[in-house]
Amino acid sequence: MAGKDVPVSPLAPKSFPEVPPVEGVRFATAEAGIRYRGRTDVLMAVMDKGTNVAGVFTKSKCPSAPVDWCRAAMKGGKARALVVNSGNANAFTGKTGKAAVKMTAEIAAKAAGCKPGEVFIASTGVIGEPLDASKFERVLADCVSRAGDGPWLDAARAIMTTDTFPKAASRVVKIGGIEVTIVGVAKGAGMIAPDMATMLSFIFTDAPIKAPALQAMLASGVKPSFNCLTIDGDTSTSDTLLLFATGAAGKRGAPTIATAGDRRLKEFRAALDDLLLELAQLVARDGEGARKFVEVRVKGATTAKSAHRIALSIANSPLVKTTIAGEDANWGRVVMAVGKAGEPAERDRLAISFGDIRVAHKGQRDPSYREDEAAAYMKNDHIVVTADIGLGKGEARVFTCDLTKAYVEINGDYRS
Amino acid sequence: MAGKDVPVSPLAPKSFPEVPPVEGVRFATAEAGIRYRGRTDVLMAVMDKGTNVAGVFTKSKCPSAPVDWCRAAMKGGKARALVVNSGNANAFTGKTGKAAVKMTAEIAAKAAGCKPGEVFIASTGVIGEPLDASKFERVLADCVSRAGDGPWLDAARAIMTTDTFPKAASRVVKIGGIEVTIVGVAKGAGMIAPDMATMLSFIFTDAPIKAPALQAMLASGVKPSFNCLTIDGDTSTSDTLLLFATGAAGKRGAPTIATAGDRRLKEFRAALDDLLLELAQLVARDGEGARKFVEVRVKGATTAKSAHRIALSIANSPLVKTTIAGEDANWGRVVMAVGKAGEPAERDRLAISFGDIRVAHKGQRDPSYREDEAAAYMKNDHIVVTADIGLGKGEARVFTCDLTKAYVEINGDYRS
Repeated sequence: MAGKDVPVSPLAPKSFPEVPPVEGVRFATAEAGIRYRGRTDVLMAVMDKGTNVAGVFTKSKCPSAPVDWCRAAMKGGKARALVVNSGNANAFTGKTGKAAVKMTAEIAAKAAGCKPGEVFIASTGVIGEPLDASKFERVLADCVSRAGDGPWLDAARAIMTTDTFPKAASRVVKIGGIEVTIVGVAKGAGMIAPDMATMLSFIFTDAPIKAPALQAMLASGVKPSFNCLTIDGDTSTSDTLLLFATGAAGKRGAPTIATAGDRRLKEFRAALDDLLLELAQLVARDGEGARKFVEVRVKGATTAKSAHRIALSIANSPLVKTTIAGEDANWGRVVMAVGKAGEPAERDRLAISFGDIRVAHKGQRDPSYREDEAAAYMKNDHIVVTADIGLGKGEARVFTCDLTKAYVEINGDYRS
Repeated sequence: MAGKDVPVSPLAPKSFPEVPPVEGVRFATAEAGIRYRGRTDVLMAVMDKGTNVAGVFTKSKCPSAPVDWCRAAMKGGKARALVVNSGNANAFTGKTGKAAVKMTAEIAAKAAGCKPGEVFIASTGVIGEPLDASKFERVLADCVSRAGDGPWLDAARAIMTTDTFPKAASRVVKIGGIEVTIVGVAKGAGMIAPDMATMLSFIFTDAPIKAPALQAMLASGVKPSFNCLTIDGDTSTSDTLLLFATGAAGKRGAPTIATAGDRRLKEFRAALDDLLLELAQLVARDGEGARKFVEVRVKGATTAKSAHRIALSIANSPLVKTTIAGEDANWGRVVMAVGKAGEPAERDRLAISFGDIRVAHKGQRDPSYREDEAAAYMKNDHIVVTADIGLGKGEARVFTCDLTKAYVEINGDYRS
């Protein structure tokens, strides 16, 4: 995940969005010099007393030290500070790594005036290098003194590694008639696979929502969004998605919500789901070397789970991804990927489409399919591949990108 | 799988081996003009009456028409002819494909003077294009009339698609004091994954061994060889491995063997296992775009099955494969791949080595590890990656190759 200079993804949004402040959250960024030079590499956010937190993490069996730390800190359900660094993942760093994360929490707690157990930490970058946490000593207190309610662009930039553009999204909705704000930033470009990725995302809201309700909403919201995102099938040791609710909108009359099923959350919930989807898609649009955003849709599978597995088999297939990079409607590779998924499928019931063009149907090439039409479609930068299994009602959707020579270049780090 | 002109793999053997004839097998090759121009694309072999056959096939849920055909023909246990074509896989071709394979068998049976059910067929190449089997009409009878006991180089060449070199191996061993010969040819370069691949391999012996014994030996022999081979994790619709035993050595006094457990088979069995391993490794050495042959060893897993899954997770990881292509000892990616395998693993017990250089130990970088030493090792064209899970006695070994820009180029078929 070396930070090379690569051009901005052609799939990036034209500009960074307008992102409003979130009451109860202040932040600043700094150059701690962890690995990069001449750019910010630390984000420190401080949250009002009473902030609740929820989180989901990598399913890797070898999680990073910060992931271990956050999982433990989650049990309190309360958060006062967040420290994120880029350049070093503090993963596979053994006792040194554990000590580094503890030291970081202590430095941050002192700076923010809270307990270490209320500090959440995320690190992204190289795996296996010891992280010198003493570098935070010089910068975190200063971050707290400088902390403000924006600009979010700075926060999104400080957490980037091989990302080619900063990622953020926001929503404003009402709870009990009172406006609340949701803001999320994300990073991630490679080593992105369900469930979660070298993917960090931090979401902040001023809504007064208790931790168990936050957790339930987050767990459900990641399913069709971040858990349906794959760049290369490689799941990172460090994936972290945290949701902080400061409750500051309570001062303006927003009711405190205790359970995710509360009907007053309906609008909030939809907005959160939507924001998670937007952030996940932004990550796919910044897949290392990506030139095309790819949406894989599977329908007609025996179950939704089966559909999801088939969709991942297609989305992770190097041969499917290279054929999309080559703008070649080589649907035989989609057949291959359906066939290898190990899920119920029958050749003679299978149909495959690129966009609205059905290329294969009932076990063979669609008689009405015209190659020039498909070739024209493949030139788009948003490609929808649909496989209709023809057996049941199971549906799934997965997001990915194409596999280009630039991916190999970025990750090959050709030193010779 | 377009047949582009690419240079011969740097991992190819220096020359094609000396391969002896196999009594009872005659073959010829021809240009049927299926897809390629100016090269042979059909192999037709005829075998003596009484030839027994065994086979293993792709586990794809969408197998090709020839795979369906062979599975059915296998039930007879007898074979008299083999027809292999390159350029078109006759996969996902529906009823047309089924009719094409039937027509091929009929043409071959007429030419060879046998029943269609004694004809075995394999096709490799593009998926989804109808195969015009009438093209065989012009060539198969001529093949039979020209058929001889060599040269095997011609057979190995006619079945190539994106392969950059022809692949064959042979062994001569004794059964009951009588010499018997085993010869195998193989093709496969991409879409190679356990279990089996766009991988075709045909093995011939003059040993008098009955079909159930052949089948048992083949099923066991593919486990540590072809089923431990992955190029890109993509399993083809067409993978076929057939083993023919003509029994011609019986005339020279070789005893007929009925069961795989027969002690007189010991030497034969070892030679067959070894030949399967050699052929599988040749396929890995010709992985599309490969510059390095990679051996992934996992030990200390809880079970052998768990070790195999972890080894595949490492061998299929694009990030591991690109780091090897880049000659970068980025062992953090191996940690990632162990972690994502979903198998029992503990960070603080894990050790990782490149060759004999232990780079990580007990959850962190090995203190004695020197980066220049590892960097020098990574320049080799045979890289051994070892992950010691430290939990049990489960071991596995998987073969693969690196992931280079050439892989993307070959498979991207950049038409624009």
